[in-house]
Amino acid sequence: HPGSYEERLAPGCSQVQLSFRYESRDQRFTIYVMQLTNCSALCLLADHKIHVRVVVLPCLEASCCLFRTRGSLPQDAVEVNEVFGMQISHNALRQKTLRVDVCCSSKLGHEQCLAGAQISLADISCSEERCTKWYNLLSHTCMAEINQE
Amino acid sequence: HPGSYEERLAPGCSQVQLSFRYESRDQRFTIYVMQLTNCSALCLLADHKIHVRVVVLPCLEASCCLFRTRGSLPQDAVEVNEVFGMQISHNALRQKTLRVDVCCSSKLGHEQCLAGAQISLADISCSEERCTKWYNLLSHTCMAEINQE
Repeated sequence: HPGSYEERLAPGCSQVQLSFRYESRDQRFTIYVMQLTNCSALCLLADHKIHVRVVVLPCLEASCCLFRTRGSLPQDAVEVNEVFGMQISHNALRQKTLRVDVCCSSKLGHEQCLAGAQISLADISCSEERCTKWYNLLSHTCMAEINQE
Repeated sequence: HPGSYEERLAPGCSQVQLSFRYESRDQRFTIYVMQLTNCSALCLLADHKIHVRVVVLPCLEASCCLFRTRGSLPQDAVEVNEVFGMQISHNALRQKTLRVDVCCSSKLGHEQCLAGAQISLADISCSEERCTKWYNLLSHTCMAEINQE
């Protein structure tokens, strides 16, 4: 009975709050990673720190398009407040997709991504206004299960 | 020099046009898969048909949340025009993520997903108005490369 599953899910999926701005004059795209909520849904391990990995794809060299926030101790809500920027023309940006993942890392530094959001930048505005939104995070386990169907 | 890469990319990433509607009275969510463009960017094989796979995640049983369009012969632009619907409360829907993939299948029926878009439904409106947009498709190869970093 799907109803009961929906009810169980209702207490909340984890979410990330992001904000974007494109400044035409400087051809600069800025990504604000603001906060995470409901991280408990991600089954975090107490001895692993969590961070957010942001990638603007497709890209040729990870060094110009991949950013990571500082690690935080696992807790239900995390204030991130980090800002990343890149120089790119508006036309090129509109063909990109932003991939945002919540990852954890052990003391040995091995990174494992747990859940993510993917945002098409096809209709990113160049109005210079900062646009802020909450995005649902989809767990990687969930995607893996569907691909095994 | 990143500029030249951006220029090479400029002829176009592939895109899918989707449309959504939520009808509160019937608690019905409708997904319209309208068309694909620039499919040549996906490196299609001539003897494989392509189709679009739509999944509303997370979900307990694939049978209630996974849909596939009919197969089409590979070509640059594909008119799909197929409609899928599901019964779900607005609160439950707002915790879901829509995953849309362009997949190909060989004559033996093996499905391989090439590129996709992922859409957070956190701010899906219940205004009954149909909202139509083009989404960039991110190739799975691209994601795999980043995860190997």
